[in-house]
Amino acid sequence: MPKNQETARATLENLYRIFTIPEAPDSTLGEVDQAISRDVAGFLQAHIVALERNIEEIEADFSLSFIPEEPTFVSEYAEFVKEKLVAQSVHTAAPGFIGHMTSALPYFMLPLSRIMTALNQNLVKVETSKAFTPLERQALAMLHHLVYQGEETFYQQWIHNSQHALGSFCSGGTIANATALWVARNALCAPSGNFRGIAQEGLARALRHLDCDGLAVLVSSRGHYSLGKVADLLGIGRDNLVKVNTDTNNRIDMTQLKETCRRLQDENIRPLALVGIAGTTETGSVDPLNEMADLALELGCHFHVDAAWGGPTLFSDRHRHLLDGIARADSVTIDAHKQLYVPMGAGMVLFKDPTALSAIEHHANYILRHGSKDLGSHTLEGSRPGMAMLVHAGLSIIGRKGYELLINLGIERANSFSEMIQQHADFELTNTPQLNILTYRYCPKHVQQALAHATLEQSGGINLLIDQVNQLLQKDQREAGKTFVSRTRLRIPIYEQELTVMRVVLANPLTTDEILISVLDEQCTIVLQQDIQSLLQQVNALCAQIAAPAVSACA
Amino acid sequence: MPKNQETARATLENLYRIFTIPEAPDSTLGEVDQAISRDVAGFLQAHIVALERNIEEIEADFSLSFIPEEPTFVSEYAEFVKEKLVAQSVHTAAPGFIGHMTSALPYFMLPLSRIMTALNQNLVKVETSKAFTPLERQALAMLHHLVYQGEETFYQQWIHNSQHALGSFCSGGTIANATALWVARNALCAPSGNFRGIAQEGLARALRHLDCDGLAVLVSSRGHYSLGKVADLLGIGRDNLVKVNTDTNNRIDMTQLKETCRRLQDENIRPLALVGIAGTTETGSVDPLNEMADLALELGCHFHVDAAWGGPTLFSDRHRHLLDGIARADSVTIDAHKQLYVPMGAGMVLFKDPTALSAIEHHANYILRHGSKDLGSHTLEGSRPGMAMLVHAGLSIIGRKGYELLINLGIERANSFSEMIQQHADFELTNTPQLNILTYRYCPKHVQQALAHATLEQSGGINLLIDQVNQLLQKDQREAGKTFVSRTRLRIPIYEQELTVMRVVLANPLTTDEILISVLDEQCTIVLQQDIQSLLQQVNALCAQIAAPAVSACA
Repeated sequence: MPKNQETARATLENLYRIFTIPEAPDSTLGEVDQAISRDVAGFLQAHIVALERNIEEIEADFSLSFIPEEPTFVSEYAEFVKEKLVAQSVHTAAPGFIGHMTSALPYFMLPLSRIMTALNQNLVKVETSKAFTPLERQALAMLHHLVYQGEETFYQQWIHNSQHALGSFCSGGTIANATALWVARNALCAPSGNFRGIAQEGLARALRHLDCDGLAVLVSSRGHYSLGKVADLLGIGRDNLVKVNTDTNNRIDMTQLKETCRRLQDENIRPLALVGIAGTTETGSVDPLNEMADLALELGCHFHVDAAWGGPTLFSDRHRHLLDGIARADSVTIDAHKQLYVPMGAGMVLFKDPTALSAIEHHANYILRHGSKDLGSHTLEGSRPGMAMLVHAGLSIIGRKGYELLINLGIERANSFSEMIQQHADFELTNTPQLNILTYRYCPKHVQQALAHATLEQSGGINLLIDQVNQLLQKDQREAGKTFVSRTRLRIPIYEQELTVMRVVLANPLTTDEILISVLDEQCTIVLQQDIQSLLQQVNALCAQIAAPAVSACA
Repeated sequence: MPKNQETARATLENLYRIFTIPEAPDSTLGEVDQAISRDVAGFLQAHIVALERNIEEIEADFSLSFIPEEPTFVSEYAEFVKEKLVAQSVHTAAPGFIGHMTSALPYFMLPLSRIMTALNQNLVKVETSKAFTPLERQALAMLHHLVYQGEETFYQQWIHNSQHALGSFCSGGTIANATALWVARNALCAPSGNFRGIAQEGLARALRHLDCDGLAVLVSSRGHYSLGKVADLLGIGRDNLVKVNTDTNNRIDMTQLKETCRRLQDENIRPLALVGIAGTTETGSVDPLNEMADLALELGCHFHVDAAWGGPTLFSDRHRHLLDGIARADSVTIDAHKQLYVPMGAGMVLFKDPTALSAIEHHANYILRHGSKDLGSHTLEGSRPGMAMLVHAGLSIIGRKGYELLINLGIERANSFSEMIQQHADFELTNTPQLNILTYRYCPKHVQQALAHATLEQSGGINLLIDQVNQLLQKDQREAGKTFVSRTRLRIPIYEQELTVMRVVLANPLTTDEILISVLDEQCTIVLQQDIQSLLQQVNALCAQIAAPAVSACA
């Protein structure tokens, strides 16, 4: 056999090996695999390097821009993964990593994920998912029931109905929100008379048919940034995603919302949807959903609730009332990879009316045929993995009461952390948590007192410096890698200003009060650094100019 | 301690256990996990029941519509998964399951998936993904290089550029196509003069600004159904997704495409994008990409190539030429969960111009800040898992040459299967494969001969019956569960009719010629069933009416 044929044959044999021969248990990859199976927390703790390397340094390991010609040994690649990827990833499960919507996951999620990956089903159609299709339909029904509390007969009729779906399972909240507003848009611009509907004729003709100059989506200024993307995507335009101010509790201001709706109607802009938020991303606040439902009813528009974060609060007998009115929403977004404790990549949108998704229904010749139970005819995405299995597992294994405990724990923790902050001499609470998210900032009490007596100009100057302090503080803490909070900019009512604040999400059941104390302690140590101290000296100098008249005013 | 407090405490302790204590190796779930690690093929073979149960029967196991109050033991749930879910799932990795775009996966994908799930990174931002962000950027650059063959200096400049991204990683081809056309739409309707752009002002104002009555996307009638969804979603309307007929090889008819473009311009509809297909879903055909690129250039419109299936053909020195012209596309969709052999849920869209994604760029206060390297500022989706890791692994471990072998194998297999079909007395090839997808139907040679001499009315009657034969045949074969082909309806040029055909996708490297023979053998056995035989008797009766004049015409 000539040399090159021989090489080709050897390569082909190697290729077959990777499809037919499992990694040996004592191979590098096999060992990592077993270490994760035995103790994922230990594995993450041992392998993720806490101290942050500069991102530019990390990039050097990922700078090759072409695909290698020759194969690499799996063992060699596994070493690379351990040293260069795992080591430099983020320990999102760490109980001190409280800055984003991440948590430790229940252990059973890992082996179940492996089963899901091994089966590699495609949920777009029954032919590539069989039992996974009824399973996903069941998971959607269970969440639908959590939100809407329909009767048993209702679910018997709709859960496995081949013409319809109670919701769409998707990769996350953004697609869920997009699906909800897509359905709302298409329902408002449904076929009627000679008009064959927006899906067919497009947005410009739909506006002519409705005889209006635009469609508006209204949400509070705390609305998730995905809504802006969706307004762009759907052709509505970001101008028509109308942000309404919030009250002092970060909830939409109903008076302003009503005023805005009137103004839009005067401008011949049709309200397409009101979006209520159940758990804002930055402050965990819940809009007055009942009042919004009343208004939507009055306006005859769609009412969507973005409960991507807060939806699972419904598990809790104690806190469920915070979401009162959610059952009146036409659609509700819930993210499973947030407070259902499922790995990344699982969102859902549920529709009160089980026929609502008809507004975006689609078919093809080789799949999604009329009358099939293929879920793909009612989803924005096409091919999708069987993530619904992990939602189904969580709901079944943890149960309503288990999730209730998790929700209650998080809210209790947020309350105790907000007390710690308020009692601490150096911190200022910038929103009172309704759920398990809160914001605060480093701002010593004497500065707070000075600010209380400052003119708007004076407080502006001081807050600018305090903003810098908090920005540096958050960055230094992240880089040290022991604990992590995030930061954002929020309008803080008492200062009538947008300020830099630190943001904390308390959803990891392994986060203890001791860890929360250590977060504040670490921050108090970080501010001793020279760059921050020099900023604080400037703050003190500015405060000194205020304190005197303030004191004399009291005298 | 009162009883209910005691119960609550016990439940809380159980809850902590699931977050802190791994499944024991000898537990049900532990055993399943190890069985999969040892031998996934064996596990799937042993646990998936071949014979298809009625979907309504399966639904009975997934009919509970509310979330159970009480927790369930993991072991109990694991039994349920084994018996009711795994057993009734689809063996998508089976080498005889050649009806859809599925395959066996390389073994290393499983342990690497587990690492990915354990790390649970969120790729929307660096703060929750660190090294995964440069890794995803590298995977995008590698695929970009495969398509566009840019210079090393080009990639050095753009690969890790914080302002831009060479593409968007996403859950699959539908989102990839949506992103491409969203970018195209926004670029065509970019800010200019007083017009602040479509993203801001919406589609209706954009049309007024462009002084046209609509935007059209043009694609062949073989275009993927996702394009219809996208036309709806983007507000363009399905009417403006203009389907152009194909030639006898299922490639877009360029003459008709040009004519259609002229007609649209006469109607004051602006061509937004031409979409070329590199590997149509139903027939694996590749459009004349160079000619389409010429036309797009002439029209000044976006040229998108949907290479979700066929993109990896570029790995092959022998077959790469089939995609000539792809490097001239403004954007290209490639699905990693198809011919990159990655598990479900990984798609990509690449842009020739590294600044193209600016057209959909977005920011928020707490993430995606200006100047950050957060990938989320250039994606349709928000939170996303670290699937790019598996793409990176495939490219690194299999290498260009390994993928080349896989591509070559599939195309060879398709050629040998099409020969088998042509040589077989009972089957008719309905498209000659360019890549590794083909269609055929059960239609005995004597019927084919009769059809060749039939009037349009006569062939219509016969084909209606043959359609039913093929529909039953496909269904019975699927239900028997030994092998699987899919079916679709396609316009077959020689009959000038849309017919039911069986569709085969040959991407699983473990599919042998012997298996392909057995697929045909099984079909020949299935047609012996009485219901099909009685249809074939009717066919023969109709043929008899044709045969005589045909023979006399030859005499």
